[in-house]
Amino acid sequence: MYKATVIIKLKKGVLNPEGRTINRALNFLGFNNVKDVQTYKMIDMIIEGDSKEEIEKEVEEMCKKLLANPVIHDYEIKIEKIE
Amino acid sequence: MYKATVIIKLKKGVLNPEGRTINRALNFLGFNNVKDVQTYKMIDMIIEGDSKEEIEKEVEEMCKKLLANPVIHDYEIKIEKIE
Amino acid sequence: MYKATVIIKLKKGVLNPEGRTINRALNFLGFNNVKDVQTYKMIDMIIEGDSKEEIEKEVEEMCKKLLANPVIHDYEIKIEKIE
Amino acid sequence: MYKATVIIKLKKGVLNPEGRTINRALNFLGFNNVKDVQTYKMIDMIIEGDSKEEIEKEVEEMCKKLLANPVIHDYEIKIEKIE
Repeated sequence: MYKATVIIKLKKGVLNPEGRTINRALNFLGFNNVKDVQTYKMIDMIIEGDSKEEIEKEVEEMCKKLLANPVIHDYEIKIEKIE
Repeated sequence: MYKATVIIKLKKGVLNPEGRTINRALNFLGFNNVKDVQTYKMIDMIIEGDSKEEIEKEVEEMCKKLLANPVIHDYEIKIEKIE
Repeated sequence: MYKATVIIKLKKGVLNPEGRTINRALNFLGFNNVKDVQTYKMIDMIIEGDSKEEIEKEVEEMCKKLLANPVIHDYEIKIEKIE
Repeated sequence: MYKATVIIKLKKGVLNPEGRTINRALNFLGFNNVKDVQTYKMIDMIIEGDSKEEIEKEVEEMCKKLLANPVIHDYEIKIEKIE
């Protein structure tokens, strides 16, 4: 069994209104030392399989076919063996 | 300067419809070895400050006052020094 | 063909951190007349079918089986005939 | 008092991975008559003010300054008087 973690983020240069909103709200509450906020979606999956490489390839395919929009998103994949 | 990462997740036992939806969609596409999917919100913040402990306390306060709903959410905080 | 619109909202009394964050951020930007903010997810679906009643029953089932968490969410369904 | 509703959607032609995921998941559950799914964020705000026109202008400004990314999002604004 493997645990795959995918982090989906807006590409550099694509404005993130949610991050900006959190930044302004924290400033309003007096947290003036907050300089930048970015938000991401994180997806954890439990996957059955035989090797880390095979799982990694599959998760890469999931991102392309379903989870991300390649025009505006970048993604990071981490795979970890669990028992 | 510090980078604070906050991961906000639904508490154990609170059903996550988004994770369930992704799981079913992956099954539909033929990824039948996907057994469980959970989704989280991840927030990265650049914060000015003098010590890791001080920043950690502040971010804890941000979660309580703004970012999370303590009835349904758990959160994790990681602080890292950046130059 | 029908267009079904589903609005998924947190139940009354379940705190909405996203709405609160937007409210504080708007206050920070000088919009002090904003008194309350709530956020919802809206889902539009194009569905083939023979009658509004049948589609409505199906969409109700989709909400229960997939789209909403009945413990924390309420939902509204609107069905409209399109040609 | 006014209630302003803002609907934020991806621009036509910007792929919506969340809508696609819901579509595939519904297909997997046997709802094969679902042909297209789009998701939006909906924001309801209670705002104090003197006229519908003034509120509309303000909400337009909120969208530009905070709530939407004009490169990838379109938005719709509805204003309604409440007592």
